[in-house]
Amino acid sequence: MYPVITISRQFGSGGHSIGEKIAKQLNIPFLDSEIVDRVAVESGYAKELIEEQGEDTSSANKWFDISAASAMYFQSPQDEIFLAQRKVILENARKGPCVIVGRCSDYILRNAEVNCLNVLIHADMEHRIQRVLQRYGDIKNVDVRKRIQKKDKQRRTYYRYYTDQHWGEYSNYDISLDSGTLGEDMCVHLVCELAEKMSQNNA
Amino acid sequence: MYPVITISRQFGSGGHSIGEKIAKQLNIPFLDSEIVDRVAVESGYAKELIEEQGEDTSSANKWFDISAASAMYFQSPQDEIFLAQRKVILENARKGPCVIVGRCSDYILRNAEVNCLNVLIHADMEHRIQRVLQRYGDIKNVDVRKRIQKKDKQRRTYYRYYTDQHWGEYSNYDISLDSGTLGEDMCVHLVCELAEKMSQNNA
Repeated sequence: MYPVITISRQFGSGGHSIGEKIAKQLNIPFLDSEIVDRVAVESGYAKELIEEQGEDTSSANKWFDISAASAMYFQSPQDEIFLAQRKVILENARKGPCVIVGRCSDYILRNAEVNCLNVLIHADMEHRIQRVLQRYGDIKNVDVRKRIQKKDKQRRTYYRYYTDQHWGEYSNYDISLDSGTLGEDMCVHLVCELAEKMSQNNA
Repeated sequence: MYPVITISRQFGSGGHSIGEKIAKQLNIPFLDSEIVDRVAVESGYAKELIEEQGEDTSSANKWFDISAASAMYFQSPQDEIFLAQRKVILENARKGPCVIVGRCSDYILRNAEVNCLNVLIHADMEHRIQRVLQRYGDIKNVDVRKRIQKKDKQRRTYYRYYTDQHWGEYSNYDISLDSGTLGEDMCVHLVCELAEKMSQNNA
């Protein structure tokens, strides 16, 4: 049986697209919008808010200030979304093999007695800028480099806040790949190869 | 043509043995004792000293103090060994595909216009302790955990001193693998698979 594959990725590294291709190639579910749908039901929050707050601190920085001051007394909307996401991720991972991108899934599943393959996808800034420009087109009045740096910071802060660990520590991953030097398809191939071998060893 | 494969590794992660197996499987040179032999000729220092000082600071901590104080005036033996090693690594890498373990080879080759595949092998402390005990037997009066931590620190210091970068930053590697969770053979298989694909793409 294939493992549950968690993919942590730097913004602009192509991790989302790599995860989608891996799921397609192994013919296992790719959990993305399904998580948002289920979290909306669980938490009662709008899908748009969940998409925005599901793994970035972004505009919710004010919530972080609130929660730092009063975390003892109540849960912030972001806390509630995190907990609902956690529940949905655990439920899905226990059902069987799937690919989950981001959302601290590596951390959430670490003690869940689920056979996991934790993947990190990264790339250098130049490759990421190229990728963001290709994907979103030439964005006027936006400094792409600054946008990437901001997104990285938001994800790091989110991860740090909910896991008390540093994002992107290589020791947290079974395999880390540079999608800039290797290319997307090579990353897909290597992770699928690894998942195949793991499933043979478990058979 | 296969790339030049550099392997950085945590002490006790099996990186040396993995590198040896990769070289054997791809039928390309594995550079280890050959480097020491050539550096001995280049630098005039004894092989034993080169083996000891070739990538660890170990007992040479005093040299670091000396070189910090007087780096403007003369080269320490360790500096001379580093420079001789650098020369030998560059010469060999320019000759053709090979596997080089440690010795800041990833950093040394970064601008050498050599097609490189930079690999990091790591593992958690428990796996590393088991491996060191298996390899060196039950060492009496030695705290293996402390020995591993000390070796890590020495390599980090050496790398930091000569490259001005942090050792083990995932962004410096094309692929990072956890030999503890994946096992040695899986690491060998994945790196060979990657080298094969790279050679096909370059053909």
